[in-house]
Parts: sequence; structure tokens; C-alpha cells
Amino acid sequence: MRNLHSNGNLRKLDSDEGETTEDNSCQNGFGDGVILGLDGGATSTVCVCVPFSPYGDRLPEPLPILGRAVAGCTNSNSVGETAARDSLEQVISEALVQSGSDKSIVRGVCLGVSGVNHPSDQEKIENWIRDMFPSHVKVYVQNDAIVALASGTMGKLHGCVLIAGTGCIAYGFDEDGREARASGAGPILGDWGSGYGIAAQALTAVIRAHDGRGPQTMLTSTILKVLGLSSPDELIGWTYADPSWARIAALVPQVVSCAEAGDKISDKILVDAAEDLALSVKAVVKRLGLCGEDGTASFPVVMVGGVLNAKRKWDIGKEVSKHINQYFPGAETIIPKVEPAVGAALLAMNFLTS
Amino acid sequence: MRNLHSNGNLRKLDSDEGETTEDNSCQNGFGDGVILGLDGGATSTVCVCVPFSPYGDRLPEPLPILGRAVAGCTNSNSVGETAARDSLEQVISEALVQSGSDKSIVRGVCLGVSGVNHPSDQEKIENWIRDMFPSHVKVYVQNDAIVALASGTMGKLHGCVLIAGTGCIAYGFDEDGREARASGAGPILGDWGSGYGIAAQALTAVIRAHDGRGPQTMLTSTILKVLGLSSPDELIGWTYADPSWARIAALVPQVVSCAEAGDKISDKILVDAAEDLALSVKAVVKRLGLCGEDGTASFPVVMVGGVLNAKRKWDIGKEVSKHINQYFPGAETIIPKVEPAVGAALLAMNFLTS
Repeated sequence: MRNLHSNGNLRKLDSDEGETTEDNSCQNGFGDGVILGLDGGATSTVCVCVPFSPYGDRLPEPLPILGRAVAGCTNSNSVGETAARDSLEQVISEALVQSGSDKSIVRGVCLGVSGVNHPSDQEKIENWIRDMFPSHVKVYVQNDAIVALASGTMGKLHGCVLIAGTGCIAYGFDEDGREARASGAGPILGDWGSGYGIAAQALTAVIRAHDGRGPQTMLTSTILKVLGLSSPDELIGWTYADPSWARIAALVPQVVSCAEAGDKISDKILVDAAEDLALSVKAVVKRLGLCGEDGTASFPVVMVGGVLNAKRKWDIGKEVSKHINQYFPGAETIIPKVEPAVGAALLAMNFLTS
Repeated sequence: MRNLHSNGNLRKLDSDEGETTEDNSCQNGFGDGVILGLDGGATSTVCVCVPFSPYGDRLPEPLPILGRAVAGCTNSNSVGETAARDSLEQVISEALVQSGSDKSIVRGVCLGVSGVNHPSDQEKIENWIRDMFPSHVKVYVQNDAIVALASGTMGKLHGCVLIAGTGCIAYGFDEDGREARASGAGPILGDWGSGYGIAAQALTAVIRAHDGRGPQTMLTSTILKVLGLSSPDELIGWTYADPSWARIAALVPQVVSCAEAGDKISDKILVDAAEDLALSVKAVVKRLGLCGEDGTASFPVVMVGGVLNAKRKWDIGKEVSKHINQYFPGAETIIPKVEPAVGAALLAMNFLTS
């Protein structure tokens, strides 16, 4: 476990920045410069440009969004390094153009990205971004889970966050800045509660029914129809034609529809996914002791991602919350009011002003 | 279900071949020409060159092997089309050079390849091979399971075959040539009994133990040691660094070792894999009615691949056989005496002489 709060670079920053902002502070009317917040999910990358606010906790609410852009996936495990880097360049340029600002008045950039599991991954992406900016710009690359947590707590790193979109991860911080995570290891390594995991289990159920190894399911006709295929045999070619995880995960709405229509196989896939997601939160909370010694302490659990917030009748997010509150009566599940990219900007603001 | 035995092309062949063999029959001393048999597994491709024997069932035993070569994977779903095609070219050339023959005296080529799940896949690979040979050469591309069955039945397509190596599949034919399959849909679509499936579950167990979502397991130290990694976190980068299925499947011996040493998690992974493999055979046998109406008829089950024939103390093949005989007392499990590539050659011989 690392302590994110004690970062020597942050203290050095204040004096460095004084000189730089003298040159650029009045350009385009953004007196204190701007911050870029990025959310690099497995499906797309969002970049927002917000005004830098040097007042610590006294942030304007809602935070004004000067520019916002969306590009492709920046997880190099999924799309490869070249595509990831190109998407980053593109989304940053577009957000700056939209906001009417430019690279010279950027104070800090914070990117939350999935697939950052090791310091060397983090460093690699930090270097990509540093190469895109003047040397005085501060760059922070964080696991997307940390940024998502900040989006639910207005930048404060305390509590647990659960993300379930194409991928899934649970991440948490205690009051002392100790961190812990669970899941987030990608589809091969058992992220069964992710959108990819749910959809892959649904595709597997179709194949098993077709083979005679498993019961018939409504998923067969529903999935074949949406993909325009005529036989489950064709699903095999479809599945391996493109390695993108997001393409598989895009089938989750069909699984939810089948479960809502009473399909038992689909229902079981969703029930198991919800249990698995709650188990990831449980593992993080236990390791950090967020629930206190008697298990009843209050702490936030920020819930992010299309799998949790789809607002469908069969509500995976509600099912996960139910399990979490069975484990920990003091857990407060929070659906963030701002998107993860804004969480990244809030985090950069906290790092720059702390 | 298709009937492989009634192939219009085969009848046309006899008259075509008469003219061609006049030109080439005495080259290199192989009076009746040669046959190439290929086994395109997920890990490697084997090609054997055998003399053509025009006497139908009266094949010399053992069949003389004139040349044998090995190259990389030819499953384009796994390694891509260019690599698959290059491996094919290479292995064919080497086998011909070894046998002292050349393309002009080849009568037929039969390739059994994994990842052939649709007529269009089959046609694509047939065209690749046709492009490598003079136009009179007969080319047959079959699912690797069909070729493996032939290797256990000396070319006769009757009964069921179970392959479990990097991938897995169950395939069968009844006396009327009707066919059925189960599994063989690759790792995303639930081939849990494959070498890849077993190893991916083991890696997942390591991650879950590390996260606090699952029990501790001996797999952690065993797998980290063999991969030269210092922490389970590094497994994530290792897993996604290379998409090759064979690289993951190569960890099966470690899972078996842990199970033999009493690790319960590893034992459960192998027990589940054996059950899943037996279930694939059961699905095929039931659909074809190989077990007869009362379920006791005799039929062969050919067992092929490193997962089934590893000859370890914890013997996955024996466990699968036990399950199969519980389902079907008349099933005779057979471990082939010749390799699948020879099975492909036997199959080509049967097609050319029937």
C-alpha cells in the first residue's frame, strides 16, 4: 500500500508554478489557468477542461466545465499502445480547443485510466502525457478507480469505489491514505461482474445450450438477433473476429432484457455478477477496516459505470447495494453527481493545492 | 449435420488422378505418390508425409512415415492469418524435403485444424493450401477433432473424440455419417476443460486469493516462481502482454503439481475440468445416439491431447474416462497409437480411395 497524499513533487510545484503563471495567466481570460481531467475507460476516454481554483476546499459548485471531448479507449492492454496514445492526444486537443484555451495555460493534468496496475504502467503513461505538454505542467496518472472515488467524494480520497462498466474494480482508501483494491484484473483473470464478464457468460450459455451441455435460454434468439447472425456456430467467429472487450460488453443490455423477461439463465448470470461485485467491495473494506472494529462504522461506497447505473427494472446496482448493506450496515452507497473525468480534475486540484 | 462420406469431389478424383500420376509416378521412387497429413493444433502444427496406398483398408501397419516436420500455430483466430499461413507453408515444405519428395508427387493433403467452425473458415484454409500445390492435388480441411478421431480408429469416422490440449472439443460421427460437436468454442466461450481454461482458472484463483476474495492457494508461489514474478499484481501485466492461448495453457503442469501436493483449489479446478470435458462427450453421444436406445451400446471414445494424456499421478484423462463410463458403460476409451497428423493422412487416404 502506498500513501498518495505525501507526494514530494506536490510541494515543489507551488514555487515552480509562480513563475510560469505570470507569463500565461491572462491568456483567454482564465486568470489562474486550467486543469484537465481525463477518464480513460475501457470503452472511451473523456477529457474535461475546468478553471483552476486556488482556494482548496472552497470550490465553486457546480464546477464550470469549459470544454469536454470524447475519444476511443486508452487502455493499452486492450487496444495496444499506439491506439491508446493517439486517443489521448486527440481527446486533450479537442477539450482545449472547445474551452478556447491552449496547452500553455494548463496547470495540471490528471488521468484516471483502467489497466494501470503497476508503477511501471503508470510511469509509461505519465511520460506520454508529459511529452504532450510544456515541462512545468504537473501530470498525475491514477487508476480509474481512484478518480471515480474522487467524483463521488468531491475529491476526497476516503471510502470505497466500485466501478463496473466494460471492466470492473473495487478500490478504497482509509483516513490514513492506505489503499487497497480487488478485481480489476481483466476478463481472463476472473472479473466476472464486469460488463465483459456478464456478456461472456451469456455467450457461453448460448453455446452450451446449442451444444446440448446446458439448458435452453432466451439469450440465444435475443443475442443472435441483435448481432444479425443466424446460428450459434457463427457466434464463435464473431467473438474472435475482434479482441475489443467493449464489443463483447455491449451485449449486457440484452442479458438484462432476458432476465427481466423471466429467463432463468440470464437471471442467474446477473445474480452471480452482483454477488461477485459486492464481494470485491467486501474484500477492500475488510482489508482497510473501513467498517470499524464492530463492522458498523459509516463510510462511502461510490458506485460508477454502466453496469451499476443502467436504471433498468433488473437493477444490478441496487442488487449490489443490497449485498453491501448486508455485509456493512454503515456503508452509504453514492452515485456521483459528476462524471469521472470531473473527478480527475478535482483530484488534480487537490494535489496542486494541498 | 453434414455427411462427410458422400462427397461428390471424391468420385471425380479417380479419373482426374489417372492422367496426372502417369507423369509423376516414378519420381523419387514413390510409385503411387505421397499423402501429406497435417495436425494444426493451437500450440503447434505437425506435418507427416506418407506413401499413398491404393489398397483401401489393407494399409501397411505401422504406416511408414517418410518425413515429419513441426511449425507454429495455424489457428488464425489465435495468431492471425499471416502467421497461420506462413506456418502452413513452412511445415509442408520441411516435411517434403525430409521425405525426399516434392509437391509434384503429392496426391492429397488433409489438414485437421482447430478453429474451423464454419464452412467459410474451411474454404479459406483450403484455398491457402490449394495455392501452394499444383491444381490436381486434392485438399481436405477438417476440424482437428475429426482427424484426431481418425487417428484412434485407423481412419474410420465412427464414435466420439475428445481433444483437450490448449483448447478442447468433443466431436462424433454415427454409422450414417451424421456428425455432432460440443465445446471447441475457445476460451471466451466457456471451454473450461481446456488447458487454457484450467490455467486461466488457476491464475484467477491466485488473483482472488491476493485480493482477499478467495482462499489462499499453493498456486500463488508455484506460478509466480515458474514465471519469475515477485507479486500477483505482476500476473496481470504478464497475462495481457501476449494474447497467445498456448502461453497460458503451458501452466497446466503447475496446476497438476499443486493438486498432487494436496492444494484444494487446484484439485477443484481439475475435478471441474474433468467433469466439463466428460459433459462435452455426453452431449455428443446423446445427440448421435451412439450409446443406443438403452444407453449400453459399444462405441469408441478417442482421447487426445496433453491435458488427457499427461501420465501424471493426478490423471485428468482417467478422471474423464471414469465419468464417461458412468454415463455410458459401453464406451471404450482409446488413446491413439498414432499422432493426429497421421490420422489426417489416413483420412485423406480413405477419402481418395472410397
